[in-house]
Amino acid sequence: MHLHDLPTPSLVLDRSKLLANLARMRKAVGRHPVAFRPHLKTAKSVDIAHLAFGGAVGPITVSTLAEVEYFAQHGFRSITLAAGIPADKLDRAGRAAAVAGHLTLITDDLETATAMAAHPGAFKVLIEIDSGERRGGVLSSDPSLPALGHALGPKFAGVLTHGGHSYLSRSLVEVRQVAEQERAAAVGAAERLRDAGLVVDTISVGSTPTAMHAERLDGVTEVRAGVYMFGDLFQAELGSHTREDIALTVLTSVIGRRPGENRLVLDAGALALSKDRSTANTPHDIGFGVVWDLAGRETLGNWTIERAYQEHGVATSDHPLPFDALPVGRRLRVAPNHACLTAAAYDRYYVVDGGEEIVAEYDRINGW
Amino acid sequence: MHLHDLPTPSLVLDRSKLLANLARMRKAVGRHPVAFRPHLKTAKSVDIAHLAFGGAVGPITVSTLAEVEYFAQHGFRSITLAAGIPADKLDRAGRAAAVAGHLTLITDDLETATAMAAHPGAFKVLIEIDSGERRGGVLSSDPSLPALGHALGPKFAGVLTHGGHSYLSRSLVEVRQVAEQERAAAVGAAERLRDAGLVVDTISVGSTPTAMHAERLDGVTEVRAGVYMFGDLFQAELGSHTREDIALTVLTSVIGRRPGENRLVLDAGALALSKDRSTANTPHDIGFGVVWDLAGRETLGNWTIERAYQEHGVATSDHPLPFDALPVGRRLRVAPNHACLTAAAYDRYYVVDGGEEIVAEYDRINGW
Repeated sequence: MHLHDLPTPSLVLDRSKLLANLARMRKAVGRHPVAFRPHLKTAKSVDIAHLAFGGAVGPITVSTLAEVEYFAQHGFRSITLAAGIPADKLDRAGRAAAVAGHLTLITDDLETATAMAAHPGAFKVLIEIDSGERRGGVLSSDPSLPALGHALGPKFAGVLTHGGHSYLSRSLVEVRQVAEQERAAAVGAAERLRDAGLVVDTISVGSTPTAMHAERLDGVTEVRAGVYMFGDLFQAELGSHTREDIALTVLTSVIGRRPGENRLVLDAGALALSKDRSTANTPHDIGFGVVWDLAGRETLGNWTIERAYQEHGVATSDHPLPFDALPVGRRLRVAPNHACLTAAAYDRYYVVDGGEEIVAEYDRINGW
Repeated sequence: MHLHDLPTPSLVLDRSKLLANLARMRKAVGRHPVAFRPHLKTAKSVDIAHLAFGGAVGPITVSTLAEVEYFAQHGFRSITLAAGIPADKLDRAGRAAAVAGHLTLITDDLETATAMAAHPGAFKVLIEIDSGERRGGVLSSDPSLPALGHALGPKFAGVLTHGGHSYLSRSLVEVRQVAEQERAAAVGAAERLRDAGLVVDTISVGSTPTAMHAERLDGVTEVRAGVYMFGDLFQAELGSHTREDIALTVLTSVIGRRPGENRLVLDAGALALSKDRSTANTPHDIGFGVVWDLAGRETLGNWTIERAYQEHGVATSDHPLPFDALPVGRRLRVAPNHACLTAAAYDRYYVVDGGEEIVAEYDRINGW
């Protein structure tokens, strides 16, 4: 099967780029004496999770209980759910823990910690630390930190932080500063908890930019990262990888031509690409994606999706578009701003291996 | 079953508001001697399509071939696919036409029109007219218009336009101007095609704002609208309905509290809400949604989602949030910026009827 045989829009994954991205991050994390726990929130695919471990299963991070259940059913035995859940989801988590074997949850809330401790489910819990993102977590200096640890009782296993504010960085110097904030916050929190008599097994940090560029991880026990597997235009702007490393694209067809305006209409719009505009504040504002040719090559400077309607993407360029080669029906590929959100519109990946032949289909799950 | 029994995030549809929205639009369109062909691109649900016709089936509009197939399989017999498709999808359209009975496609491209005319599929075709949106369609003054009509041969059935630039309006006066642009462009194109000897059966116009507020539709044969069924914050800003008319919300749980910053973390983030920011340029920039209580009431001025991460929504307000009543686990509902995009993350609607009891589940489809 060939890219010409797929419906459009479809999600296309380049396995050669994926494998290179997986290897690059394993090497980056391998600079440090820490465990690596890839985050499957982007890929949401057991096929891709296996590739991340060279065909085996290993410790993973996920973002929803649906992912916990899916990966546990497929044999993954050590799973960390790195998003807080309310106590009314603990029964479901407990059932998933019985399948997975080792399920780790997170919390930053005393009432929830107390409910977790009292729950019969065989899960462990990490305290979520805020290392500067100002989303979830308590500060490592928060007076409530030891009480949180004690409230968890035997379920307490350590601390976790996500330096998501690395996404606001505009240089590798800034990314490395955030990496050090992650490390210092997590290790500092662990020290305070140890001082309070608790046994801290796990000190978990990570985001794709900080995992790639951290200079030192002393005291950290594990690193997490997810979007590095596919890459996207936003991560390329952050310096996590180059634009050519992006493994995920949306296959689309030309459905309209406006030569007088130097514009094309594609059948990849807001549902096919997402309305993520994370590149808006980066050096290259790329609209809703960059248009590549069917072989996945960037062929024309600044050929981007400037408008995204539900099912229509309007593409333009600062160069004249080659309309003679762009009849209605011509197939193109769009590299996305944010791979996690774009992939979520699809239930499978069509896999190519540097070319245009489909060499595999990979499963993926969505929802909660 | 109660809203407390659902997983979060979930999609909640208030049937009483839905029915009122359906009736209001039927009444608005009923002011004119035209047919109404509701657009199911927002609801994508056979249950809701039946409600739009009081339990019967009627003529509908859809945005994807997957919707054509789904509604045809469920007994809908007159379906217009109001997004252009390339010629390589005509076989699939032809098979769907055999099920539906009456399938109508659109085109604005001479090569595609020629391929459509030559195809054995039993579909009809409307010429897409650009009435000012500058997305798809030819201008009613375009010299190629008669050639397009003739190229379609016996499959030619008329013209269609979508005044999507009504979404840029900031007053009812402007909405009514766009409605007149839709009407004038479609009727003008039909006149030119009739002058060229073609029989124009269908003159189709519509968008939710223009369908609601058009002053006259002389010469038009049918009107289309879709998002009116649910409404959303953007349509409320445009004046298509009030904020209280919004029938679609996302059920969410508090998963974090930051009283010092007057912020809450909810388990409805970018996947649960979409990253649509269509209210950004309206009088009330609402971030990624407005937070309501579990009963679906707006209880606090300007309580909105200011940041949307993949699985986290960070909510704040210009009033102090009532943290005593907002423990982790408290359930809330978020009214979305753009119902079409928010609904697309879910495979079903949990239906309430003004209260908090689940009275039904409605199917929905996604994908292409």
